[in-house]
Amino acid sequence: MTAPNWLYENFETAGSAIGFRVNAKLDEVQSPFQKIEIYESTDWGNVMLIDGAMMVTTRDNFLYHEMMSHPALFTHAAPKTVVIIGGGDCGTLREVLRHPGVEKAVQCDIDEQVTRMAEKYFPELCESNGDPRAEILFDDGIAYMANCAPGSVDIVIVDSTDPVGPAEGLFNKAFFESCHRALKDDGILVQQSESPLVLLELIQAMRAEMGKAGFTTFQTLPFPQPCYPTGWWSCTLARKGQGFDFREADARAKPFETLYYTADIHKGAQSLPPFVAKALGES
Amino acid sequence: MTAPNWLYENFETAGSAIGFRVNAKLDEVQSPFQKIEIYESTDWGNVMLIDGAMMVTTRDNFLYHEMMSHPALFTHAAPKTVVIIGGGDCGTLREVLRHPGVEKAVQCDIDEQVTRMAEKYFPELCESNGDPRAEILFDDGIAYMANCAPGSVDIVIVDSTDPVGPAEGLFNKAFFESCHRALKDDGILVQQSESPLVLLELIQAMRAEMGKAGFTTFQTLPFPQPCYPTGWWSCTLARKGQGFDFREADARAKPFETLYYTADIHKGAQSLPPFVAKALGES
Repeated sequence: MTAPNWLYENFETAGSAIGFRVNAKLDEVQSPFQKIEIYESTDWGNVMLIDGAMMVTTRDNFLYHEMMSHPALFTHAAPKTVVIIGGGDCGTLREVLRHPGVEKAVQCDIDEQVTRMAEKYFPELCESNGDPRAEILFDDGIAYMANCAPGSVDIVIVDSTDPVGPAEGLFNKAFFESCHRALKDDGILVQQSESPLVLLELIQAMRAEMGKAGFTTFQTLPFPQPCYPTGWWSCTLARKGQGFDFREADARAKPFETLYYTADIHKGAQSLPPFVAKALGES
Repeated sequence: MTAPNWLYENFETAGSAIGFRVNAKLDEVQSPFQKIEIYESTDWGNVMLIDGAMMVTTRDNFLYHEMMSHPALFTHAAPKTVVIIGGGDCGTLREVLRHPGVEKAVQCDIDEQVTRMAEKYFPELCESNGDPRAEILFDDGIAYMANCAPGSVDIVIVDSTDPVGPAEGLFNKAFFESCHRALKDDGILVQQSESPLVLLELIQAMRAEMGKAGFTTFQTLPFPQPCYPTGWWSCTLARKGQGFDFREADARAKPFETLYYTADIHKGAQSLPPFVAKALGES
């Protein structure tokens, strides 16, 4: 490869592509589950791809990791036990552990190589891995949730790749039933839910599966994310029965810094654009 | 070209790229000012490129056009006279004319070919071109603003391409001085202001030039826009002295439909992420 060159991800599902200008390929490993590649980009720091899909860049991952964690943690009344399924780059774990009230955060990613690559090329995402509250497992997240003690978890965050390949089983009723059983009555499930512009059908289908598993209230929060297709992404929160009472005062007084998340950004994300609200039956 | 194929825009300034899967090239014209190309995409409708940069897709242009118009029109107390510099695809004009209080909307784009291509390939954007309140000029926007009667305009919307080539002169003090003079005392200038993630320096520089021209208060509103680099874009509003009193009740009661813009989306966009607020000196 003659540097610099352009590295593209063609997202066939949506007919759109994203790309970064890169200087060099730094690493590649074929794990038992997927191919992981690391590139050095000219403007976005390091870039991790899994099976050809952009996963993380040094420059923009804060958007995703902050929005996958803080909205849920500032909605639950007092989250103490958090389980992250997937999330092998450890960025979501780091954000979860910024909350002093969290007593235990389990990260269960099937692929140890993702974490090994993150430790080497995204060390800042792994800076809380040694926190005594953190438990890092390399195991099947589906089995982990199925075997989780009922009513033992406050928040489950499903920080997965797209719903194909290893992550396919993280988007269906059986998995969501395990999450439902593992959560306490006031627990919250969070799932990354793809682009609200082009994958509304996926969000609808995912909410339907969550509904079959017993979840009754949903909240989809959009946010910008340049390294994912369309540059516009979302997470979806699900609860067993209660609404989503945002602890706004606590969010305003949060004892840690963020680059994207604020109480106002959180509130703003709760107002869906009409075309999204309509598709999700919320208008 | 063997269809379908992938069409990319490499955005050198930010080291990032966007692309669409296309079936066919429908048209191309080299105007005296720039090269305009039209492609039929597989999932995004038609796509217009100017000098290789993605300008409009059928599917996602509503985001940009709604945010370039409605926030300013629902901030000004009673906008009657609106001037659009650039905007040759007529999408911003259409949105401006949705406001019943607008008595006159002038669109001045230097390149007639952009409008001719829009009429043919994006007819829905041109559906208000026959409105008796609309005046469509093909002329130099810099000269138009320089010759505009002082204190005659309520809102100037600069709906331009990137600040290189034909649009370069739309981002400097001289042009902003013309806008300042043409605007009434309570007038508002709106400028598309590129990506808040990677072009904060451009927004800072643009605000500085606006400041030298006499504008004193600014408001940068981010919004998603998949067909522009990083998928995250912004517009910046500038006023002579007053703040930005949002006519929230009027926005809630607006007599027209939108796909993205709502009073709540408008309010949400006013809360900048900390890293943007800090860079713009607003934190």
